[in-house]
Amino acid sequence: MPFYTCYTSQDALSSQEKAHVAAEVTRIHVQHTGAPRGFVRVLFHEVAPGDCYTGGEVADFAMIRGVVRAGRSAEIKEALLRDLWVLLQTVTGLGDQELLVSVQENPAANAMEGGEVLPEPGEEREWLARH
Amino acid sequence: MPFYTCYTSQDALSSQEKAHVAAEVTRIHVQHTGAPRGFVRVLFHEVAPGDCYTGGEVADFAMIRGVVRAGRSAEIKEALLRDLWVLLQTVTGLGDQELLVSVQENPAANAMEGGEVLPEPGEEREWLARH
Amino acid sequence: MPFYTCYTSQDALSSQEKAHVAAEVTRIHVQHTGAPRGFVRVLFHEVAPGDCYTGGEVADFAMIRGVVRAGRSAEIKEALLRDLWVLLQTVTGLGDQELLVSVQENPAANAMEGGEVLPEPGEEREWLARH
Repeated sequence: MPFYTCYTSQDALSSQEKAHVAAEVTRIHVQHTGAPRGFVRVLFHEVAPGDCYTGGEVADFAMIRGVVRAGRSAEIKEALLRDLWVLLQTVTGLGDQELLVSVQENPAANAMEGGEVLPEPGEEREWLARH
Repeated sequence: MPFYTCYTSQDALSSQEKAHVAAEVTRIHVQHTGAPRGFVRVLFHEVAPGDCYTGGEVADFAMIRGVVRAGRSAEIKEALLRDLWVLLQTVTGLGDQELLVSVQENPAANAMEGGEVLPEPGEEREWLARH
Repeated sequence: MPFYTCYTSQDALSSQEKAHVAAEVTRIHVQHTGAPRGFVRVLFHEVAPGDCYTGGEVADFAMIRGVVRAGRSAEIKEALLRDLWVLLQTVTGLGDQELLVSVQENPAANAMEGGEVLPEPGEEREWLARH
């Protein structure tokens, strides 16, 4: 973790745009949380035409959804959401009603990387030294 | 948010059935929570043959999974789950052991729509007036 | 619930390997939590080439992600994560930096099976007797 998934319509993003989104999501997460870059995963998920509805109608849609370690302040989370929002809106060109950005918090102890449960936010140094 | 994903086997639902499910999920969510219709997203996710197991065996399966704002009562959540259950069972024709319906609660402050973090449940009026 | 999703690159696992993973995830979950086998769902999700990034670069990746009922001890969760980790690493042959295993806890009352909200962990007997 963190584990971000970027949902878009099929073929909405080129390979270059995906690489840009992945690089920027990584940079934004590291900047706001101080987490090690190597922890940041970004996956892309393309939704088939007609498989996304808003308010009961088929609609364009893009979403970035992150599962992040619990324990960051409201200020950090809002700054993170804001930068992800601007990134997603810029790369997709979609309107305010067609975007959703969220994070879901999961306790560090509920995830394992490198064969070990994750350290709490801010306690990465000792953990990384062991790996 | 809310953000609902309806998982089914590949080609289990026609386009018309998907439209029906999306309309009904939207109606059910709005009825029980009072949330604005335009907040309600429904995505469909089709699972390839052989990619779903129950109790260790390949099995038919359909699921509705919602990520909703935290803060609703147990009564509201149970009514929501019950109506979604009936909808999913009716449209898929699957048995009681082949269905799963769940919501996962996320604090309003962990999601952004319209470039702003979401209001708490019940505090939408002022938020919507700004948008 | 539990509801596990195994993410891999496209065609990383054969049908036999998927069946093995599903059987083992089911066995591991039941062993550590005592949950009924029939509650355990395992889905597979294949990620298209170039759709997964780690630290901003395209990278091999596999993940098991479970949504489980809340209320298990840290010891149980760590044992669960450890066994899932070994399983995923063995079947994929990927390195320590290419794997992620996590569980996300959801209160039993937020999910419905068999048309009824789920029992709390340890209170399954009466619930199952009704079904």
